[in-house]
Amino acid sequence: MLRTHTCGELRISDVNQEVVLCGWVQRIRDKGKLIWIDMRDRYGITQLVLEEGKNPQEIIEIARKLGREYVVMTKGKVIERESKNPNIPTGEIEIDVTEINIVNSSKLPPFTIEDDTDGGDELRMKYRYLDLRRNPVKENLIQRHKVGLEVRKYLDSQGFLEIETPFLIKSTPEGARDFVVPSRMNLNEFYALPQSPQTFKQLLMVSGFDRYFQIVKCFRDEDLRADRQPEFTQIDCEMSFVTQDDILETFESMTNYLFMTINGIELEKWPRITYADAMKYYGSDKPDIRFDMRFVELTDRVKNKGFVVFDNAEIIVGIAASGCAEYTRKQLDELTEFVKRPQIGMTGLIYVKYNQDGSIKSSVDKFFSETDIQQWLDAFGAQKGDLLLLLAGETNKTRKGLCELRLEMGKRLGLRNPEIFKPLWVIDFPLLEWDDETQRFYAMHHPFTSPKPEDIPLLDSDPKAVRANAYDMVFNGVEIGGGSIRIHNKALQQKMFSLLGFTPEEAQNQFGFLMNAFEYGAPPHGGIALGFDRLNAMFGGQDSIRDFIAFPKNNAGRDVMIDAPSTIAQEQLDELHLILKKPEKE
Amino acid sequence: MLRTHTCGELRISDVNQEVVLCGWVQRIRDKGKLIWIDMRDRYGITQLVLEEGKNPQEIIEIARKLGREYVVMTKGKVIERESKNPNIPTGEIEIDVTEINIVNSSKLPPFTIEDDTDGGDELRMKYRYLDLRRNPVKENLIQRHKVGLEVRKYLDSQGFLEIETPFLIKSTPEGARDFVVPSRMNLNEFYALPQSPQTFKQLLMVSGFDRYFQIVKCFRDEDLRADRQPEFTQIDCEMSFVTQDDILETFESMTNYLFMTINGIELEKWPRITYADAMKYYGSDKPDIRFDMRFVELTDRVKNKGFVVFDNAEIIVGIAASGCAEYTRKQLDELTEFVKRPQIGMTGLIYVKYNQDGSIKSSVDKFFSETDIQQWLDAFGAQKGDLLLLLAGETNKTRKGLCELRLEMGKRLGLRNPEIFKPLWVIDFPLLEWDDETQRFYAMHHPFTSPKPEDIPLLDSDPKAVRANAYDMVFNGVEIGGGSIRIHNKALQQKMFSLLGFTPEEAQNQFGFLMNAFEYGAPPHGGIALGFDRLNAMFGGQDSIRDFIAFPKNNAGRDVMIDAPSTIAQEQLDELHLILKKPEKE
Repeated sequence: MLRTHTCGELRISDVNQEVVLCGWVQRIRDKGKLIWIDMRDRYGITQLVLEEGKNPQEIIEIARKLGREYVVMTKGKVIERESKNPNIPTGEIEIDVTEINIVNSSKLPPFTIEDDTDGGDELRMKYRYLDLRRNPVKENLIQRHKVGLEVRKYLDSQGFLEIETPFLIKSTPEGARDFVVPSRMNLNEFYALPQSPQTFKQLLMVSGFDRYFQIVKCFRDEDLRADRQPEFTQIDCEMSFVTQDDILETFESMTNYLFMTINGIELEKWPRITYADAMKYYGSDKPDIRFDMRFVELTDRVKNKGFVVFDNAEIIVGIAASGCAEYTRKQLDELTEFVKRPQIGMTGLIYVKYNQDGSIKSSVDKFFSETDIQQWLDAFGAQKGDLLLLLAGETNKTRKGLCELRLEMGKRLGLRNPEIFKPLWVIDFPLLEWDDETQRFYAMHHPFTSPKPEDIPLLDSDPKAVRANAYDMVFNGVEIGGGSIRIHNKALQQKMFSLLGFTPEEAQNQFGFLMNAFEYGAPPHGGIALGFDRLNAMFGGQDSIRDFIAFPKNNAGRDVMIDAPSTIAQEQLDELHLILKKPEKE
Repeated sequence: MLRTHTCGELRISDVNQEVVLCGWVQRIRDKGKLIWIDMRDRYGITQLVLEEGKNPQEIIEIARKLGREYVVMTKGKVIERESKNPNIPTGEIEIDVTEINIVNSSKLPPFTIEDDTDGGDELRMKYRYLDLRRNPVKENLIQRHKVGLEVRKYLDSQGFLEIETPFLIKSTPEGARDFVVPSRMNLNEFYALPQSPQTFKQLLMVSGFDRYFQIVKCFRDEDLRADRQPEFTQIDCEMSFVTQDDILETFESMTNYLFMTINGIELEKWPRITYADAMKYYGSDKPDIRFDMRFVELTDRVKNKGFVVFDNAEIIVGIAASGCAEYTRKQLDELTEFVKRPQIGMTGLIYVKYNQDGSIKSSVDKFFSETDIQQWLDAFGAQKGDLLLLLAGETNKTRKGLCELRLEMGKRLGLRNPEIFKPLWVIDFPLLEWDDETQRFYAMHHPFTSPKPEDIPLLDSDPKAVRANAYDMVFNGVEIGGGSIRIHNKALQQKMFSLLGFTPEEAQNQFGFLMNAFEYGAPPHGGIALGFDRLNAMFGGQDSIRDFIAFPKNNAGRDVMIDAPSTIAQEQLDELHLILKKPEKE
C-alpha cells in the first residue's frame, strides 16, 4: 500500500509513530508561520501541521502550492495536538510533516465538497464523481452496502439461496413498458430487460429450490415521475409450501433485523390492515400510521337534512385535527385551497371547530343544529380544541382528497417525524381492477397472483369482488414492496389470462413456458419484492431515492455525466438490421 | 408453513413425532402388501411406508394414483426403519403415513430426474426447470450461492464496499460489441449494456471510495464460442493507493479463503510468472502448472547442422514426456497427426526416445549424431525412459502448437487431475498488441491500463515493447480473471487513446467524462475482475460454465425455454421509432 494508515485511524496512542498518509486536501489554513492542512479520505480527516523555520522550507513551498482536492502523499510523525478537536476521532493528534508529494493536482471543483454544498442538482449530477465525495452521499452508499450485506446474511441464515436470473429475456406486453434489446444473432428479434424476475423465480420454485432471493436490477421504460428511475434494484424473494402468514412473518422479521442492525431501532409487532379498511380509514393503500387521525364517515347521519352538498354526495367523511380549533380564517382558507387544487379537485371543505370553551362553530351552522353537530363530534370522539374537517363527494375521489388533507394536517402538526418508523402490512388487495378507458380488467398486483380460494367462485360472477392473497409492506406512508401467493395451477392461470383479455393463443405464446411448468409438479408458492433503493432511502430517513444510488438518471432518463443515451454508429445499426425513423417535426 | 419438517431433516431421535412433509415423489415401490414412496425436496429424501390392512385403505388408494414428480403433502408418524439405509442422512427412519394429499399432479417428465439423466442438452435446456431438480445442477447453484456470499463477507471484512453501477450506459466502439437498448424518451438514441463497470469503478476511485467491489452481470454481443454466454457475471473490484503487489496479495488471499471455506483446501503461495516467461516456458499466457514439462529451446544448438526443417525454423523447441520412450509407432503417429490438425497447423513432429537401456532413437538420426542428441537430452535434463517431442517453425505458432501438445501429453499422463488446484499470477503483460489486418494497435487488457512507469519512454520509440502493470489470475490452465493498475492522469490517458488510433475528438466524445474526472484529484488506483461463472465451474472441478448458471443461453444466444429473443409488437417498434430491415435472401 502507498500508505501506512488511512486518514481516519490515528489516535493519541499512535503518537511518535512515523506514518504515510494518502488523501485529498480538504482545507488549508495558512497563518504565515504555521500552516494547517486537513487531509481527507473515505475514512476521515487528519490534520497536518507545518511551521516556518521548523519543517524543511521545500515542504512549506509545496504546501503553499496545494489547492482544494489535490491528492497528496504525506510522510510525518504523529504528534499530540495543542488544541484538540473533540468533534472528530482523529482530533487529538496531528502530523508533523517531513515529506509531501503531490500525487495529482485538481482544478477548482465546480461546487464545494462539503456536507452542505452550493452545487445545484444538474451540476451535482454532471460531476457526480465529485458529489460522491460529500459525506451525506458517501454515507448513504456505505449504508446501502451494509443493508445489502445484512439482507444477504439474514436470508442465507433462513435457508434462502441467491440465484441469478437472466437479464436478456422475452418482451411481454402485460404490465409496464419493456426496454428491448435488438438481437444481432437472431435478426429482427429482440430481447427484453426484466421488469422483475417474476416468472423465473416461480420456475425456481417449480424446480424445488424452496427459498430463493436475489438483490437484482430491474428495468421499466415508464415516463418518469419524480423519483422514479428506469433501472432500479429489488430484493426479490420467493418461498414454497407457505401461507401468506409465513411470508409476512419472514419479511417482517428480516426488516426488524435490519432496523436493529443498521439503525439500532427495535420495531414493535406490525399491524395488519385489509385493503378495504385502509381505504375506509385512511383513503390510501399505503397509510402513514405514525399518527392516528382516522377517517370517520358521517354519510348516513348527515344526508337528507336539506344541505345540498351532502345530499348530492356519495360519501361524507372527515378527520379530527387535535388542537386545531383555533385555526384562523386564513388557515382554514389555505386548507380549502389545498383540497380545491386540481390534483385533488374537491369543491370545498366543511369545518367544525370544537372550541376549548365547549362552544361549536362550523361552516354549516345554517344547515345543522348544534345537537346535530354534537352527534358528529361524538362520532369522532372529538375533544375540546379539535377541528373537524369534512369532505363530501364521490367515494374514491373524496377518500383520496381526505387522505391528502390528513397527510397535510399531519405535516402541519409535526406528526410525520422521519426518525419514527411505523410499518404495517396491507393485505387482501383486490385481484383485479377495472379500467374504464380500455374497458378491461387489469391485474392489481400481476397476472400470477392467486385469488383467495374462497373467492374463486366469484371469478365468474363478480370478478371485481375477488380478493387476492396479495400484500404490501408500508412504512410511514410509503410502499416499500409487495407480493402475493401465486397461482400454481395451469387451469387457474389460464382463467386469469382469459379474464385479462388474453386469447388462449396469446397466453400460450407469452407465458406457455410457465403454464407448461405448472404441469410438472408445481408446489404452492408465494413471494415478495422490496424496493431496495426505496428501503435504503427509508433507512436514511429521506424521501428521495436519488442520493442512495451512485449514478442515477435524471427525469428524462439521461445520465448527464456520461451523456447517455447517445447516437450509435451506422455500422452498429446495419449489423442489427435497424433503420431509424426520424421524429416528425412538431 | 404447510410442513413441519423438510424431507432432509428427520433422524432416529425424531421417532414417534407426528410430522407433515411436503415434496415431490421421487420413486414408488409397490410390493403389493407394502408400498414405499421416496419423497424429495431440496433438502433430501424421506421414505414413506404404507401397509395394506394397516394404513387406511383410502390412503393406499391415493398412493397407488401417484406418479413421479407429483407434489404431495403427507402426515404421519416417524418410525424406525427395519432395514436402514446408511447412504442418506434420513436413512434410519421412515414415515408411517396417516394422510396423503395430492397437492399437484405431474405429467411424465421428458427425461429422468436423476443424477445421471437420459435427457440430451437441448431437452434439458427446454425443460430447465426440471433439469434444475437434478442433484448435480442443484448442488452447483447452491455452491454458487455460497461462493457469492463468502466473497461478499470477505471483501466486506477487508473494507470493500459493494456499490451498484448503472446498466443503461453509453455505447463505445472500443473492445467487444455492445448490446444496445433503444431509448423511447430520447428518440434515435441508444443506451448500451455494460461489458464491464470499468469506467464507473474508476470514477468511484476518483470519488474516494477507496475499495469497491460488485458481483455484477456484464454483457457482450460476441459470436458465441463454446461455453461463452452473452450475459455473464463478474466479481469486479477496484482499490486506490495501491501497487500491483497489493492487488495480487488481496485477491490471492480472497481466493485462498474461498478454497478453504468452500472446498476445505489449503492452497500454497501462488507463483508469479511474467508474460514473457509464460510464453517461453509454456507457450501460453495461462499455463497449466499442475505438471511441469516446461519448454526447452534448442534453436541455437540445432540450427545450421544441415537439417533443413531446423535451418528454416525461427525456433526449435520441445518438451520431455516422462516415461513415454516406449511409445509405439502408432502412438507417435497420433501425436504427429495431433500437431498437424488445421487448428495447430504444424508440418511435423520430431521425437527422441531415451530408452531405459540408455540407447537413443530419434526421427532425425540421419541428421544428428548421438553426441548431438545426447546434448539435447542434457539440455532437457532428461531421464532414461523420457520421450522428447520437438516442434520447429515460426515462434508464436510453434509455441502455441507445443502448448497444445504439452496439454495433450499432460492429459494422456493423467497429470491434469480436476481435484488438484494450481493457481498462479501471470504478470507484466504487454500494453499493446499490433493487429496486422487493421494495421493498428489494440490494448491488450483495455485502454485504461497503465504502462509500467519505467517503460513510458518506449511509448514513443517502441510501443510494442511497453509492458503494462497488468496481470491475470490463472488456475489449472484457465484464466479466471485479470486486471491492471490504471492510468490516473489525463495526459497519459490521451496519449494512450492516440496510440489506439482515436482522434482527440473521438476520445473526448467517448471518454471525456473519465478524462475530465482525472483533472479533479484522481488517486492512483487499480483493480481486477474475476469471471464468477468460471470461478464457480472451477470450484466445482468442471470445465463447462453452463451448469453453474440457472438459466443459460445456447450457442445462438437463445433461451430455448422461454423462446427468447422473439419478435416484438409493431406498436413497440413505432414507439421506439425503429424500422426493421429484413435480411436479404441468401
